[in-house]
Amino acid sequence: MTYPVIRLRPKADARAVRHGFPWVYADELVTDRRTQGLTPGTIAVLEDAERRAMGVVTINPKSKIIARMLDRDAGAVIDRDWIAARLARALTLRETLFDAPFYRLVHAEADGLPGVIIDRFGEAAVIQPNAAWAEAMIVDLSAALADVTGVTAIVKNATGRARGLEGLDEETGILAGKIDGPLPVPMNGATYLADLMGGQKTGLFYDQRPNHAFAARLAGDARVLDVFSHVGGFSLAALAGGATSALAVDGSTPALELAEGGARAMGMGDRFATRKGDAFAVMEALRGEGAQFDLVICDPPAFAPAKPALEAGLRAYERVARLAAPLVAPGGFLVLCSCSHAADLTQFRNASARGIGRGGRRSQLIHTGFAGPDHPQLPQLAESGYLKALFFRLDG
Amino acid sequence: MTYPVIRLRPKADARAVRHGFPWVYADELVTDRRTQGLTPGTIAVLEDAERRAMGVVTINPKSKIIARMLDRDAGAVIDRDWIAARLARALTLRETLFDAPFYRLVHAEADGLPGVIIDRFGEAAVIQPNAAWAEAMIVDLSAALADVTGVTAIVKNATGRARGLEGLDEETGILAGKIDGPLPVPMNGATYLADLMGGQKTGLFYDQRPNHAFAARLAGDARVLDVFSHVGGFSLAALAGGATSALAVDGSTPALELAEGGARAMGMGDRFATRKGDAFAVMEALRGEGAQFDLVICDPPAFAPAKPALEAGLRAYERVARLAAPLVAPGGFLVLCSCSHAADLTQFRNASARGIGRGGRRSQLIHTGFAGPDHPQLPQLAESGYLKALFFRLDG
Repeated sequence: MTYPVIRLRPKADARAVRHGFPWVYADELVTDRRTQGLTPGTIAVLEDAERRAMGVVTINPKSKIIARMLDRDAGAVIDRDWIAARLARALTLRETLFDAPFYRLVHAEADGLPGVIIDRFGEAAVIQPNAAWAEAMIVDLSAALADVTGVTAIVKNATGRARGLEGLDEETGILAGKIDGPLPVPMNGATYLADLMGGQKTGLFYDQRPNHAFAARLAGDARVLDVFSHVGGFSLAALAGGATSALAVDGSTPALELAEGGARAMGMGDRFATRKGDAFAVMEALRGEGAQFDLVICDPPAFAPAKPALEAGLRAYERVARLAAPLVAPGGFLVLCSCSHAADLTQFRNASARGIGRGGRRSQLIHTGFAGPDHPQLPQLAESGYLKALFFRLDG
Repeated sequence: MTYPVIRLRPKADARAVRHGFPWVYADELVTDRRTQGLTPGTIAVLEDAERRAMGVVTINPKSKIIARMLDRDAGAVIDRDWIAARLARALTLRETLFDAPFYRLVHAEADGLPGVIIDRFGEAAVIQPNAAWAEAMIVDLSAALADVTGVTAIVKNATGRARGLEGLDEETGILAGKIDGPLPVPMNGATYLADLMGGQKTGLFYDQRPNHAFAARLAGDARVLDVFSHVGGFSLAALAGGATSALAVDGSTPALELAEGGARAMGMGDRFATRKGDAFAVMEALRGEGAQFDLVICDPPAFAPAKPALEAGLRAYERVARLAAPLVAPGGFLVLCSCSHAADLTQFRNASARGIGRGGRRSQLIHTGFAGPDHPQLPQLAESGYLKALFFRLDG
């Protein structure tokens, strides 16, 4: 097989690519008419300005990230076997880390499959092919996934924000097998219900697993408030950790129904309650009612997904902290999360501390958590570690 | 009781103190002759430039940190009962977090006892009174500690680097009860031996507990190399996690003997070996021998404890990574730690990634860990989070 050749401009940072940076930006590439004319997802050989081969890449002339490194072996053939080898390597890591087959199996670049997200739910899996090459090879990807893992049902989820940037459609559908309603997922002693067909992202947020686990350690005999609860990630883990009650707040009825279903599946439906509504309004209402909780978690959507939203996003995080802090009983715990790429750890921590102060409380920071190890990063892209969870203990 | 009054200069940042910053620097205080003449450790009332009381502080005219906040209630009386209340609050957190009484009980400012470190080892405890006020009140501190926790043996460890800055002596001794040789400490399924009288710091590094635990998850059936092992923190946790063998490398014979004692206490002496020597030299020698390990941990002393040592320190971290990477078997794990205040997470991660690259390997970063939750921080001082542990998976 002979792949077309693309070439870096003389001024491009070939060293960065050589040292492991996985992307080439559009202004670093010689983009003649031939290159411009390549179909998004085309596999090509990348050369430096001196025509030395650097590896096999996938290119997308429509994207700012015009080339993504697939294999640093310039002779590699990108086919089903190649994909299977990458999947097997990813699987080995997860089998080392987890007792049961519920995890993010592939986390894009860091697992050697640029733009590809795969979450596994036992015998089922959800693929997010967020790059054109993966969309083009979806049949091979799906077949290799079944071969390597033995999953029998495969969903393609096409709601990823990145797909728009790649010029891809947003059609979600079934690639193999079938899905009969929400699937039960055991994690941290809790049971979650994941709706692989209709849920946010791939149906469950595996990235928060270690932070759910840490919250569960603080939950013994606690009254728990889980704001922006989605399907109950924190509140069900807290119930498993010994919480006496949990109140989940979310704007989505389907998410709250899944959370309730999880609590019932755990035999703890009687300790679990929900309140549908705007999180900010519900926190203000709870304050008006004089409600107090021993453990309050706020895991909002990304308020600062990208740079232009940073200032407004940080103000929103501060507001979350300010409204939540008064709801924490003396000596209780407040967990504040951000999944914003644009807000770094220091900015998010400062906004949170400021909000706690404006909420009239003082705090200790006892733990800082990130996404779990089934969400590896390339060290060269680690700045973009998006998920942060801050665990505060408030004054008594 | 009437405490002397000290006063901020008009230009001092009273707002920072009001918002929770716990220190006053020498150039922010009106340091007239009376203030200069106060004995280090004197308790005083801090006022702002407009003579409004801000709280009770301890002052040390010899220190750059001239005043440390003890209590924001300006009417507080700093006595044995006051100390006991702080200890009780610290104890509550640890009892929530841990099943057994082995932890850092007091982590200085964040636990409301500025400059005071207390590590608990079951019925024994080690106090590091690293501020003049704690040295002056050591009898009350020790008595309150026994009252609140029930410990029967108390050691004063005076080797803390901070004591020099405070103008304190370096005498280590017994304040209560007695210590008969090294104490067994159960942690992460392993048994450690802590030498409270002769060890580094307080005898054991509790701060690494969650990182030991994470390494243990990667240790199943692994050949483990623990470089800068001290008393075997990582290697014994790895054995408990299922490692087939562990080799501990350290420059200290007493530390290696304690590590060996721990392995024997676990009934795993036959899987454990030690090599005494310079860590860099031993890693080079192991490479010469063609040795390979599935899990390599390097937890060196602080190469960049303060700003002037930063550049040299980062080079040393890079060198550690470069020498360790070739010792990791294909698909194995490399854990790199830094306890340097001056090197922040990004700098340390970049130095580590560079070293791994120069060692001829590519990597995924699967986990970033910090000090455990028995080492809380004030959000206002969280920048100084000194301990970082990076978990890399190397190419296969």
